[in-house]
Amino acid sequence: MSRFRLVVAYDGTDFAGWQVQPGERTVQGELGTALERLTCECVYPTGSGRTDQGVHAKAQVAHVDVSAPWDPGDLHRAMNAVLQPDVRVMRLSRAAPDFHAQFDAKFKEYRYFINTARWVSPFDLRYCAHVRERLDVALMQAAADVLVGEHDFASFTANPNRVVRTTVREVLELSVRRRGNTVTIRAVGRGFLYKMVRSIAGYLIRVGSGQIPAESAGEILASCERTATVPTAEPHGLFLWRVGY
Amino acid sequence: MSRFRLVVAYDGTDFAGWQVQPGERTVQGELGTALERLTCECVYPTGSGRTDQGVHAKAQVAHVDVSAPWDPGDLHRAMNAVLQPDVRVMRLSRAAPDFHAQFDAKFKEYRYFINTARWVSPFDLRYCAHVRERLDVALMQAAADVLVGEHDFASFTANPNRVVRTTVREVLELSVRRRGNTVTIRAVGRGFLYKMVRSIAGYLIRVGSGQIPAESAGEILASCERTATVPTAEPHGLFLWRVGY
Repeated sequence: MSRFRLVVAYDGTDFAGWQVQPGERTVQGELGTALERLTCECVYPTGSGRTDQGVHAKAQVAHVDVSAPWDPGDLHRAMNAVLQPDVRVMRLSRAAPDFHAQFDAKFKEYRYFINTARWVSPFDLRYCAHVRERLDVALMQAAADVLVGEHDFASFTANPNRVVRTTVREVLELSVRRRGNTVTIRAVGRGFLYKMVRSIAGYLIRVGSGQIPAESAGEILASCERTATVPTAEPHGLFLWRVGY
Repeated sequence: MSRFRLVVAYDGTDFAGWQVQPGERTVQGELGTALERLTCECVYPTGSGRTDQGVHAKAQVAHVDVSAPWDPGDLHRAMNAVLQPDVRVMRLSRAAPDFHAQFDAKFKEYRYFINTARWVSPFDLRYCAHVRERLDVALMQAAADVLVGEHDFASFTANPNRVVRTTVREVLELSVRRRGNTVTIRAVGRGFLYKMVRSIAGYLIRVGSGQIPAESAGEILASCERTATVPTAEPHGLFLWRVGY
């Protein structure tokens, strides 16, 4: 039995998210099917966390146990030969037997891309949200600064009734940068609630377009209640960018 | 009657090239169909030149005459509302009645992207050639320098028997740059022969990977004969980047 560590990139467009689901094309499902073809073992890699339908990953990390005596380089090539082009194993290495892609993760970085051009080219269309209004990045950053640190993010998660022990999370970094027509929100944290990054992005877009004052951040956070003021930004602007161990 | 100037971006993956062809999905055909739906006139825009099957364009330029009294802004929005997401009109403006997208073009810039990483991510896969060998950019540039200027490029076109008046062309710039794992070939010229840029790219890749010495450039050029030494690089690495007027 060997434990392998995989770094996986995927274009989320044609996936029903990361997690295996009957009757749906998912990233975990495709990786499991590829491994089953190669090893004749029914194993699904464990990811650092789920990503939702339509969300992309530049570097999702996962681990998987394989009984067959595969060389890492061979398994890597074989998996990419079997996988469809919208999911690629970028790195594959042998891991310590107790390495756990989810529990050992120290932080995760997400990036949310917003294109503010009049028209988005076919090359960017699937990888950014399109917001035609001029976004005030300084206002967005001011609101973002309030969200950094340990807070109860109940008002920034899509479904506060989901069974989670606590809605308290620590956001380590939250930056908003403009480069040309692209505004990028970078969110780093130990862990995020369900749809939390997209909720923060949806809220910051509203702040940037002047629909909500930046000063509302503290109040919304303190309310611990999800309202229509915080919309969930579209999934295709979001990338799981990096997982730190 | 108004003449309009269009700047069009397209992802060539699912197109049988620019030029309208019966029974094939082409960019010119899609633009013509969109215009016919909007104006009830059967008009196909005239492009600065053709692009082959699978080749992309960041900024193809075209002109078209429309009898119906359309405002440029309205026509622009209406066309993008009707077109599929893999082709987008990035700019549309009224043009002088004698503006001609092909004959008035002063130069064209193409870029050819080569990814030399071990694995190409799903985000880059459709937009670059994948060459796993280490490419020596200095050797590629040395060979490229020989091709700059006015020469008979018969040995760098796919079908020298095509009816063209002359196979003499002037290459204004030909540069090879590396940035991370991406090697980019930039070709600027007044006009290029059929598959000329991809032939140059195919040849330069061979030089970069050490299969042919850089000194061969002058000899191949002088031979005026297309041989297997000059392969045609894959279409999906090529972008029509800019047309200058």
